[in-house]
Amino acid sequence: MTSLPSSRPATAVLLAAGLGTRMKSSRPKAMQTLAGQPMLAHLIASAAEVFDRLVIVVGPDMDDVAKLAAPFPVVVQHERLGTAHAALQAEHWFGEGDVAVLYADNPLISAQTLAALLAERRKPGVGLALLAMRPADPARYGRVMTQGEDVTRIVEWADATPDERATDLCNAGVLCAGAADFRKWLHRVGNDNAKGEFYLTDVVGLAVDDGARVRAVEAAEDELRGVNSRAELAQAEHCLQERLRHKAMENGVTLVAPQTVFFSADTALAPDVLVEPNVVFGPGVTVHENVVIRAFSHLEGCEVHAGAVIGPYARLRPETSIGSGARIGNFVEVKSATLGEGTKVNHLTYLGNARIGAHTNIGAGTITCNYDGVFKHTTTIGNNVFVGSDSVLVAPVSIGDHALVGAGSVVTSDVPPEALALGRARQVNKPELGKRFMDARKAEKENG
Amino acid sequence: MTSLPSSRPATAVLLAAGLGTRMKSSRPKAMQTLAGQPMLAHLIASAAEVFDRLVIVVGPDMDDVAKLAAPFPVVVQHERLGTAHAALQAEHWFGEGDVAVLYADNPLISAQTLAALLAERRKPGVGLALLAMRPADPARYGRVMTQGEDVTRIVEWADATPDERATDLCNAGVLCAGAADFRKWLHRVGNDNAKGEFYLTDVVGLAVDDGARVRAVEAAEDELRGVNSRAELAQAEHCLQERLRHKAMENGVTLVAPQTVFFSADTALAPDVLVEPNVVFGPGVTVHENVVIRAFSHLEGCEVHAGAVIGPYARLRPETSIGSGARIGNFVEVKSATLGEGTKVNHLTYLGNARIGAHTNIGAGTITCNYDGVFKHTTTIGNNVFVGSDSVLVAPVSIGDHALVGAGSVVTSDVPPEALALGRARQVNKPELGKRFMDARKAEKENG
Amino acid sequence: MTSLPSSRPATAVLLAAGLGTRMKSSRPKAMQTLAGQPMLAHLIASAAEVFDRLVIVVGPDMDDVAKLAAPFPVVVQHERLGTAHAALQAEHWFGEGDVAVLYADNPLISAQTLAALLAERRKPGVGLALLAMRPADPARYGRVMTQGEDVTRIVEWADATPDERATDLCNAGVLCAGAADFRKWLHRVGNDNAKGEFYLTDVVGLAVDDGARVRAVEAAEDELRGVNSRAELAQAEHCLQERLRHKAMENGVTLVAPQTVFFSADTALAPDVLVEPNVVFGPGVTVHENVVIRAFSHLEGCEVHAGAVIGPYARLRPETSIGSGARIGNFVEVKSATLGEGTKVNHLTYLGNARIGAHTNIGAGTITCNYDGVFKHTTTIGNNVFVGSDSVLVAPVSIGDHALVGAGSVVTSDVPPEALALGRARQVNKPELGKRFMDARKAEKENG
Repeated sequence: MTSLPSSRPATAVLLAAGLGTRMKSSRPKAMQTLAGQPMLAHLIASAAEVFDRLVIVVGPDMDDVAKLAAPFPVVVQHERLGTAHAALQAEHWFGEGDVAVLYADNPLISAQTLAALLAERRKPGVGLALLAMRPADPARYGRVMTQGEDVTRIVEWADATPDERATDLCNAGVLCAGAADFRKWLHRVGNDNAKGEFYLTDVVGLAVDDGARVRAVEAAEDELRGVNSRAELAQAEHCLQERLRHKAMENGVTLVAPQTVFFSADTALAPDVLVEPNVVFGPGVTVHENVVIRAFSHLEGCEVHAGAVIGPYARLRPETSIGSGARIGNFVEVKSATLGEGTKVNHLTYLGNARIGAHTNIGAGTITCNYDGVFKHTTTIGNNVFVGSDSVLVAPVSIGDHALVGAGSVVTSDVPPEALALGRARQVNKPELGKRFMDARKAEKENG
Repeated sequence: MTSLPSSRPATAVLLAAGLGTRMKSSRPKAMQTLAGQPMLAHLIASAAEVFDRLVIVVGPDMDDVAKLAAPFPVVVQHERLGTAHAALQAEHWFGEGDVAVLYADNPLISAQTLAALLAERRKPGVGLALLAMRPADPARYGRVMTQGEDVTRIVEWADATPDERATDLCNAGVLCAGAADFRKWLHRVGNDNAKGEFYLTDVVGLAVDDGARVRAVEAAEDELRGVNSRAELAQAEHCLQERLRHKAMENGVTLVAPQTVFFSADTALAPDVLVEPNVVFGPGVTVHENVVIRAFSHLEGCEVHAGAVIGPYARLRPETSIGSGARIGNFVEVKSATLGEGTKVNHLTYLGNARIGAHTNIGAGTITCNYDGVFKHTTTIGNNVFVGSDSVLVAPVSIGDHALVGAGSVVTSDVPPEALALGRARQVNKPELGKRFMDARKAEKENG
Repeated sequence: MTSLPSSRPATAVLLAAGLGTRMKSSRPKAMQTLAGQPMLAHLIASAAEVFDRLVIVVGPDMDDVAKLAAPFPVVVQHERLGTAHAALQAEHWFGEGDVAVLYADNPLISAQTLAALLAERRKPGVGLALLAMRPADPARYGRVMTQGEDVTRIVEWADATPDERATDLCNAGVLCAGAADFRKWLHRVGNDNAKGEFYLTDVVGLAVDDGARVRAVEAAEDELRGVNSRAELAQAEHCLQERLRHKAMENGVTLVAPQTVFFSADTALAPDVLVEPNVVFGPGVTVHENVVIRAFSHLEGCEVHAGAVIGPYARLRPETSIGSGARIGNFVEVKSATLGEGTKVNHLTYLGNARIGAHTNIGAGTITCNYDGVFKHTTTIGNNVFVGSDSVLVAPVSIGDHALVGAGSVVTSDVPPEALALGRARQVNKPELGKRFMDARKAEKENG
């Protein structure tokens, strides 16, 4: 909660009933994802910083949206009769303070902008505040006409004169007013228009007619641009990624090629982390100072301690912790595993459900066999262990400190500390048979 | 064949004799690739939608170009005497209808634009139609001078007055005329110029001098820009990829980072497919609804059924079919293989020449040994099979339904349904030997 | 050394004492990297082409900078009193010829630009030459005021009139003068300003006051833009990569998606090399003609001979040589290894410290076990060898020509030419046990 100068409660109504029609999707629009999270989750996060109460308006049969909205109350708009009609479904929750109406397809709006909207509404004498922007291409947005600081009306593009179209201040559709006024104006909105819908925008005209003072709060186009198509979704994702990249660089992270690094909203990178090109951060990643994340790496739900080197082609999955100075090399996947300080896993390895100590070396091609088809089991490896290449560790199994596992072994029972474990067949050489076998094959091919 | 209002035959002459000089390539320019196909193949595809007959003009010793052109007739331009000279080599094929001359280094021209050119030529009273564009930077292109709708002449940049240079309508060099006229004008083109070449562009002046009405058809710069250098080739590839990305998004595909996804012209993705950053689609890929293609995946010649999850770092190669709800994980390569519904192949695996049933689990590090140095053999795996980690399946071999293969096994003979197969050595632990061995090595190192 | 018309010695003073404050880095600014090299290394490389003598000014406790500067002399600026003060620390090295002062945070300046600066200074009658640029956004740069060809003064943005701010010629801060003059002017610079620092820029005014003719040499903004933040570092990296991409394409290399290919300054690619999207070249890579580098590959310190195909997902590490027509496939890592002509390593393999002949096939999942925890050992493989899938080669070991290694073998001793080597356990099938085992597990799970 950003502290606000007033003790009046503030309620945000989030309109999330939209279908994914223009997305050509079977999913509701609010469930389309940005940086790995549904659009509605981004909007809820911003709104919850500013408003005391949130209420989400969903369409019929949108159980997944309702689930995402929890614990905030949800109301269902059973008929699609327009945005004013949608907002009215939440009337019961308006309370006595101020009410703002937001859209799930404006997911990049910031808490700062919402706070500015609410503060503007609460200025003495202001009856209605709305959000506006000056887009690079104003196109067919409704124009916000002003006289001094006051908004006089919204002109839809179709009805606008050339002079009005020359105005570049455009309506973003987001409104904030006192609950009683908002309720009154919403009930007055009519549907005498081409589509027969009740438009929220008409509230502005009703407020002006009522003699209410209407004010516009300007925000950046990137925050307010609607997301209605897959192309606009990609553009919103790009805006969000650019914000996250700049934030990382300002914090002292080197991104060799920022455009090729993809973050989650919660990615936490310390100063002097170096990120090479083509790296993807899923949710829940924390990386400490002086770590190098090499090209083509993919990290999710993990913590990497100071000075470790990850990749190239490293895949860290959830519930993983990599010790300081450790080394995870190419084509290595680690999941639900803890690796101690200075431990090395350099090549073509899968570690799942493992606890590995410090200064241990895991050879190329090692596989922890952690799943028996029904249960997951744990592999425990001590400090200063050397696991030879291409070993299979069949969990549950443990390998003690200073133990050595011979290359190519299948380890099915525990290895005591300091022991040498071998589990491989003895080699036999059969003279001439190699060439004879191949020659026979080739002859077969030629004859056949 | 886009249906056209006329029954007159239409012939396209495709000039493909250019060397790769400015490309610094030993390959003819027409063979440079875009989205995995030679430039000439793109032009042939567009032209064949509009013209009844195609004839390709190649240079000497361009057998690969001629091969690509098949079954269309090919003529050889033995001496490089200019574009008009090149077009004349195809004179024998002009026939009685209309003739257009196109260039292999304009590979992005659309069938719509070619149809518009031909339609313009066929308007009553029009003797010659040409393609023109308004490039962002008109630079040194020849300018198209017009009076009303009629083209009066082409002025080369070097000969143009400042006023003429201010014109932004530029000549793209593509012409269309009746066969008899075209033949006549081509024979009249002279070579009294600095390079001593016969230029196709001179046809425009000859047509105007003859009193023929000349018309320009405008098309987008992206379609008409010539591809003469590697940098222009990269730019053309970029244009083509942008078209393919937009088409995918319009069809309901989510591209998290469109700029990082590379398509082939024939990539087919259903609505609600999600494509993460850094994915490459080679030729022949079909992906059904609700599939997720995770980051760093590479797909070629495969079909992925509904709801499957592919990657990250999955490599699907030709003749592969992935069942609905199946899961292909990281560092997994699949080639010439069929996987049933719900089957999982999660880590570090190579499956080649395999037929795998439904609800089967292939453990980490599994390798199908499908090649004996001469022949490829098939591995057949049933339903509900569990193949333990790091197993080797030496084909030809089959594993029955509900069978279980122990981790680390080398499977060389068939496994009956419901059986347990083991093929691994027994583990031996030798107390203290591990540490003793390592200590001895370290001592050896210290002693030099 | 670019030859210059004068035999007077020329000295460059490189200011590298800056901290990484705005970078939020614990490393000195000069040590931040571009294309894998510290910024100072780029500047040293350009300056050493033009100047006879270089001297580097570092801050206290900057041993790594001093180490990088070797064998050039280093002086320490113990107090941070401004750029003129920093330059004066190197006074002892000015000698008798000309002196230029450069900045480690201008790392992209070219040798051509430095040569032009020095040549300008050496024109008859010129006392001081400086570098200037016309940035896209002149912002708060100091403006260079001129009268005809002569610079009359530098106006800091804060002191500039609107007319002066309208000038787009901006000061880049780099100066060149005769040693005696430079010494004299530097000593006269005062610190009567807000920060109490001695600014190098003040030398320009002092020179003009002295009646010296001052000239500006213009260079591109991309060469002169300062690198003070991580965002500017990323922008400089982008400029450098764009230069390298264009150079490669001009040399006849096809880059399918140039923006996704990352070079080192020394990457050497022959004509008709094809590079697919998402490829990273570390230092020391040479690639010969007609090689294809497929998507998601990463190459460092290696040579790839004509016609080889690398990747996708191939990782070539230092001291590696790939023979002509060889094939390195997906998820394959090669380090310190030589592969002969036509040899194939197609899938999920690690080759380290290996010498492999021609026309040999290394099966999927093969691992060379080259490290025993203390020493590295070599694996030697002959010509026409067939190594079966998932083999482990425990070095030191050698395999003779035409030998065959059975799939899944652990090879611990040498294999003679033409022999067949097997080292794997025999398979046993236990009827019904597979299903019984799984059923028992499932029951266990259900019962809790």
